[in-house]
Amino acid sequence: MAGFNPIKAPEDAVVNQQQGPMQILNPNIDIDEEDVLYHIALSNRSHDLKDMFQDVKFVCFGGSPSRMKKFAEFMVKELRYKLVAGQSLCNIAHGSDRYVLYKVGPVLSVSHGMGIPSLSIIFHEILKLLFHAGSSDVMFFRIGTSGGLGVEPGTVVITEEAVDGILRPYMEVATLGMMLQYPAVLDQNVLKELVASSTPDDHFQTIRGKTMCTYDFYEGQGRLDGAFCDYKKSDKMAFLKRIYERGVKNIEMESLCFAAYCHRAGIKSAVICVTLLDRLQGDQIATPHDIMEEWQSRPQIIVARYIKSKLGII
Amino acid sequence: MAGFNPIKAPEDAVVNQQQGPMQILNPNIDIDEEDVLYHIALSNRSHDLKDMFQDVKFVCFGGSPSRMKKFAEFMVKELRYKLVAGQSLCNIAHGSDRYVLYKVGPVLSVSHGMGIPSLSIIFHEILKLLFHAGSSDVMFFRIGTSGGLGVEPGTVVITEEAVDGILRPYMEVATLGMMLQYPAVLDQNVLKELVASSTPDDHFQTIRGKTMCTYDFYEGQGRLDGAFCDYKKSDKMAFLKRIYERGVKNIEMESLCFAAYCHRAGIKSAVICVTLLDRLQGDQIATPHDIMEEWQSRPQIIVARYIKSKLGII
Repeated sequence: MAGFNPIKAPEDAVVNQQQGPMQILNPNIDIDEEDVLYHIALSNRSHDLKDMFQDVKFVCFGGSPSRMKKFAEFMVKELRYKLVAGQSLCNIAHGSDRYVLYKVGPVLSVSHGMGIPSLSIIFHEILKLLFHAGSSDVMFFRIGTSGGLGVEPGTVVITEEAVDGILRPYMEVATLGMMLQYPAVLDQNVLKELVASSTPDDHFQTIRGKTMCTYDFYEGQGRLDGAFCDYKKSDKMAFLKRIYERGVKNIEMESLCFAAYCHRAGIKSAVICVTLLDRLQGDQIATPHDIMEEWQSRPQIIVARYIKSKLGII
Repeated sequence: MAGFNPIKAPEDAVVNQQQGPMQILNPNIDIDEEDVLYHIALSNRSHDLKDMFQDVKFVCFGGSPSRMKKFAEFMVKELRYKLVAGQSLCNIAHGSDRYVLYKVGPVLSVSHGMGIPSLSIIFHEILKLLFHAGSSDVMFFRIGTSGGLGVEPGTVVITEEAVDGILRPYMEVATLGMMLQYPAVLDQNVLKELVASSTPDDHFQTIRGKTMCTYDFYEGQGRLDGAFCDYKKSDKMAFLKRIYERGVKNIEMESLCFAAYCHRAGIKSAVICVTLLDRLQGDQIATPHDIMEEWQSRPQIIVARYIKSKLGII
């Protein structure tokens, strides 16, 4: 891991990247001993992880298991990936019911559940999986849903920088009695490439912006429709307008950890979320199911286009 | 909500309870308007929540969807609940893939995923569901898994008090730019009744203790087997021994929010978790699947016994 420093200032984001086989920042992991990836029911003893995963180049994370299954099926079409006769995609993590994991050639499609702690668990285990597999030059994407701020519902927001619920650009991890901070920095070159890949033919807008990541969906995002609420609509609106003025375009619950851990691990990454509503207009998500489904496919389209361009598939 | 104050000191925990129909602490929720419970795909317009849920008296939460399905099936037997001919239990939240929700007479069995943010979402929505349903005198339980500290794996720990990763007995919620603190207090009478309900015939131990609740499974719990680890085994052991000496018997990822929100809402509750390993001995969970399955049924046995005693079923 020579020359690879996990804690860097934001301006160094672009150069802070792993090259070659996946490294992990833990000298305790001995590849010759069993390492159980408990929450995906795999281990380097029970499975030949090298044989299964060495060719992985892109890992796409999203909250919902069924959406990540759909993304895998979408990638089969996009990559014109040929399934073996008599075989179909299956959830590789089926031995556990915590996450799903699908593989389509060089692409892994993984669910992460809701919130930072849930993402954090699968992030650790996917990183170790790729380390045991000896995969190299892997990129990570989060393709998710979010609430928008002052943007048309259905817009795709690509994250410039993730901030927490009080606008701090780092994630805190309570570690053996210390509160350690990891900057939530994303690769600015990948961001630019992704934004530039949107075309006038797209039937939706793709923009860049700051993403607020909260630990709570209701009060943490200033909603008026939770089971607890001790503030007024005017308080909510004042807060949302203030964060909008500071560049926040959408709010979700995982980008801070995703950005911080990718940066820490030196992995090129991006966060691409569709907005399901404009929080300046309301809180409830009541859009019909079929429209929502179409919206949720939009980040998938952007990422599939990027992956195909990197693989030279036209 | 007269006489019902959500923020009380720990010593008041026992008396701070709702009586009568479920109340929520949000004057914005108007029962005459549509309220979409987005993550469980129900609403007070699309469903007759009163008809479906008014008789609920016990809500049992647990992380894993398949475990909560098994718990519902277990309660069918325990309550000698008669399913209608030609019918079987189904996941009431099947319109979404975020959580599962089963109902067996007065008992709801709900999955909450992993970590505080995931629990927080379903907690808000279940509270609103019970409010719309007009349910009354409802108790909440979390039946989960955890890492133990200095106790035999397979032991059931009933939580006296939940603390965060640096031993603070409250949950913080970033709310419109403020960091608000909610004490994670649990009902001491329910705790005593649950501990007393264990019998010499039980093939496992049931003890009481402090529960540490972290936002991270690997570094947050001092594990040496994550993808990131920048401390030594001696640092980990020193930390775990220090928290053990201060009464922490197990570590998991939801109790802080569960206790804080139940206390805030004035709901009688308890946290009952089995320990899957002794963290003073190691980090990896490598116990055979069938043994783990049996261990995971233990908190269910304790809670089923309690529910049956309250319902007068012998």
